[in-house]
Amino acid sequence: MRDVQNLIDERGIAIQKVGVSDVYLPFLIKTKSGSWQTVLAEIELMVDLPQEFKGTHMSRFIEVLSDWSQKPISSNEIKLILRDIMQRLNAQRAEMSMKFKYFVERSAPVTGLKSLLDCDCSFSGIMEQGTELDFMLGFTIPYTSVCPCSKEIAEYGAHNQRGVIKVKLRSERDTIIWFEDLADVLGNQGSCPVYPLLKREDEKFVTEVAYENPKFVEDILRDAVISMRELTGITWFEVECKNYESIHNHSAFAAHTETVG
Amino acid sequence: MRDVQNLIDERGIAIQKVGVSDVYLPFLIKTKSGSWQTVLAEIELMVDLPQEFKGTHMSRFIEVLSDWSQKPISSNEIKLILRDIMQRLNAQRAEMSMKFKYFVERSAPVTGLKSLLDCDCSFSGIMEQGTELDFMLGFTIPYTSVCPCSKEIAEYGAHNQRGVIKVKLRSERDTIIWFEDLADVLGNQGSCPVYPLLKREDEKFVTEVAYENPKFVEDILRDAVISMRELTGITWFEVECKNYESIHNHSAFAAHTETVG
Amino acid sequence: MRDVQNLIDERGIAIQKVGVSDVYLPFLIKTKSGSWQTVLAEIELMVDLPQEFKGTHMSRFIEVLSDWSQKPISSNEIKLILRDIMQRLNAQRAEMSMKFKYFVERSAPVTGLKSLLDCDCSFSGIMEQGTELDFMLGFTIPYTSVCPCSKEIAEYGAHNQRGVIKVKLRSERDTIIWFEDLADVLGNQGSCPVYPLLKREDEKFVTEVAYENPKFVEDILRDAVISMRELTGITWFEVECKNYESIHNHSAFAAHTETVG
Amino acid sequence: MRDVQNLIDERGIAIQKVGVSDVYLPFLIKTKSGSWQTVLAEIELMVDLPQEFKGTHMSRFIEVLSDWSQKPISSNEIKLILRDIMQRLNAQRAEMSMKFKYFVERSAPVTGLKSLLDCDCSFSGIMEQGTELDFMLGFTIPYTSVCPCSKEIAEYGAHNQRGVIKVKLRSERDTIIWFEDLADVLGNQGSCPVYPLLKREDEKFVTEVAYENPKFVEDILRDAVISMRELTGITWFEVECKNYESIHNHSAFAAHTETVG
Repeated sequence: MRDVQNLIDERGIAIQKVGVSDVYLPFLIKTKSGSWQTVLAEIELMVDLPQEFKGTHMSRFIEVLSDWSQKPISSNEIKLILRDIMQRLNAQRAEMSMKFKYFVERSAPVTGLKSLLDCDCSFSGIMEQGTELDFMLGFTIPYTSVCPCSKEIAEYGAHNQRGVIKVKLRSERDTIIWFEDLADVLGNQGSCPVYPLLKREDEKFVTEVAYENPKFVEDILRDAVISMRELTGITWFEVECKNYESIHNHSAFAAHTETVG
Repeated sequence: MRDVQNLIDERGIAIQKVGVSDVYLPFLIKTKSGSWQTVLAEIELMVDLPQEFKGTHMSRFIEVLSDWSQKPISSNEIKLILRDIMQRLNAQRAEMSMKFKYFVERSAPVTGLKSLLDCDCSFSGIMEQGTELDFMLGFTIPYTSVCPCSKEIAEYGAHNQRGVIKVKLRSERDTIIWFEDLADVLGNQGSCPVYPLLKREDEKFVTEVAYENPKFVEDILRDAVISMRELTGITWFEVECKNYESIHNHSAFAAHTETVG
Repeated sequence: MRDVQNLIDERGIAIQKVGVSDVYLPFLIKTKSGSWQTVLAEIELMVDLPQEFKGTHMSRFIEVLSDWSQKPISSNEIKLILRDIMQRLNAQRAEMSMKFKYFVERSAPVTGLKSLLDCDCSFSGIMEQGTELDFMLGFTIPYTSVCPCSKEIAEYGAHNQRGVIKVKLRSERDTIIWFEDLADVLGNQGSCPVYPLLKREDEKFVTEVAYENPKFVEDILRDAVISMRELTGITWFEVECKNYESIHNHSAFAAHTETVG
Repeated sequence: MRDVQNLIDERGIAIQKVGVSDVYLPFLIKTKSGSWQTVLAEIELMVDLPQEFKGTHMSRFIEVLSDWSQKPISSNEIKLILRDIMQRLNAQRAEMSMKFKYFVERSAPVTGLKSLLDCDCSFSGIMEQGTELDFMLGFTIPYTSVCPCSKEIAEYGAHNQRGVIKVKLRSERDTIIWFEDLADVLGNQGSCPVYPLLKREDEKFVTEVAYENPKFVEDILRDAVISMRELTGITWFEVECKNYESIHNHSAFAAHTETVG
């Protein structure tokens, strides 16, 4: 059968990115305690295409992903996947991203009851022939925020709401950044962390802690920036905080990007 | 050209619903003050198909919707659209729903500053040959809710969050239910209404009002049920309240359906 | 600490449904071959609330779900979960639904290459004191559909597109309905099944099979209805087919509900 | 009342972006024919915040947006909005984006029947003190694509599907880029344009045109790149094409960014 994709193309346009998206597959992520968590990932995988070829071979993206799915994945496997697809498609550059929910265990602050908090996470990697992998990790965790202005001006009470911190980061090559550590560090930057399971004594505790610790979205962002600077091995990060305002039908947000060191 | 849709089908299955969905078109909705608001509607339109026909004629659904779009729409026009499509497709039953955002004006409680609040709304109608239109109106409005348990057990403060009341209703034939009236009635059933624009004196006011008026999602539901019973001309309603909990990563909700009178 | 939820309510409104939603937790689903698949589930769990109580105890929903998560789940466990929450909350009625992606293995039709197809699935159950569990299973699978009208009237070619069949079903008490069997039966009702991985000889095969087998969305629905009637042990079903039309920016759909036997 | 936002902040972190998101408001867009189209916009508006201030004043973002909404908007008004918010908040930099559906009229290729096609559009602008507005326009339009490989290798037929071209562009200061022109140019880069309304003779036409014009997602991207280069006044563009594959449950895509001239 004729390989139409391999025909010569004469438009003179090298395509920067071509590949597959909206692919869903399971992978295993190593937890900090050494066990494995199965995650459902939504994946994009793409390569470049030289100007002389009419098309890439789309089935090879799925072959590569199928070979690696249902197995452990981290920055190292992403490097190997990108090498694999570059080799199979004779490409100079490859890029992959995967988004998934990862569960971190939370202990209620008074009763200590344990529950699982779902956090939106991502891995992404870019590699060119002869260069190192450029790997980015993404992590999002919810928090409670109490408005300092509302607390200050009101005789009693203060409006508060759920918000989320979303970070993307790059780290030094041999540094492992655990989602569990990010959860501990970033989950604490709001007025109080969020917990799936709270009994009455816990609810009293989180209400009071939050009220004693009012923070604007700008405060949460700044404290998150400081906490990211203090994490060992981070070389670049982006932080975004978003409050789902309880007194409005819109959100308040703040964002910051920084190269470290 | 052969009309494949008109071929005889011998599987003996009359299809209950066939039509188009994910259609987007603009319509005009009459405001309570007598002006018109342009809305962007996502639409479904469907008919039944007798067992003897292989297929319906999908283009006619779009022809009908195109004829009626960019014009005023209410229960009366939906009746005419359903009659129109039943006639063109020789159907015994037709059904339509449209979802859209509608803006209601809010005045900040102290400064009186005006702003527009976006509310998710819907119209839906079902008609069979020889019967009246069964018309349903949907309306969703956000509120602030302060947790009574948190207020009671904490020394100070109380967790609160944005929530939404979502109603669907049927009314007597000659009753007009204005979105503006639903906004006034239902927007007040939380601990405090939500406003797009609040200055500092307004924020003090809403913080204090909400704190003085703590309500569980169950309280908001019950008060919404009472308010729906008191509206003139309502014959059936469904109410759903959902709190986007500020101390959790999940929602609390309550729902209730009732035939009136 | 005072139990505000247990206060007497005097509005006289028994709440039909109160509970939690937007909860995410992992569960295990038994595959037809006897192994286990980890799924990420989005969950709702709710009970009724008698008119005399001000509120339910929201933390107990999360306690119950936490106890049962990360473990096998099927209709039997849903029955036990509903009994558990009814007992803990002294309720007369409980209801649960969970939505998740489940992977079924597909073999390419010529090369036999295996890959995983993601299908949107659901379990839902309703139970009242003294009654059996009313359990429903949901399953969605994509297909390719070639338009018979387009094939008939055009000199060559025929427009085709991806579509999905979505079923909900109830079955006899001792019947186990495997997602794998639904995938085999329903995945074949379009013009051709959809496969994640196809090599060139497979693509030739599916293109020709689909072209030889043109079907309107109405045809796919009718054939899906017939296939559901033929499955052993089904007592009720709902089928919905939706084509993401390739020549339009909207969808064509058809739906049918039936009680069997 | 104390202005908590104006308090001195000592963390030494200037915030790059702070503002509001998930705001919905109506605006008017000028059509090429000189009339106005009401659009429902989802908006983000943000400024920078010097390190010495604890917080920005969130209500001013809504005040500015409220002043400008329900009125005509284009790059010029976005410049004025950004100036307005920079002035009110004493900022050095401001940024805004708005996403909306815009309808373009399509005429069926044989019958000439007119209908409205919904296209996802956006305006975004960034401005710093003393610099020009950096304005970007976004436009997305669906197409039909017929696979050249499938056509080549199959005895008859060829798989095809809906896809979308998504462009972002910058243009010279005095160039007006009309959505209607982008619709004409980009809507033609697939195997055939998509139309909301087609009668049988139109369907025959589009089926045959598409079959005679098979294109990979890479071909569509390259032809879209060429068409963007040929548009007068474009200085930079990004093109992304995505095919919702009819034989798979995932998408194929290609992307390209280019500075012109």
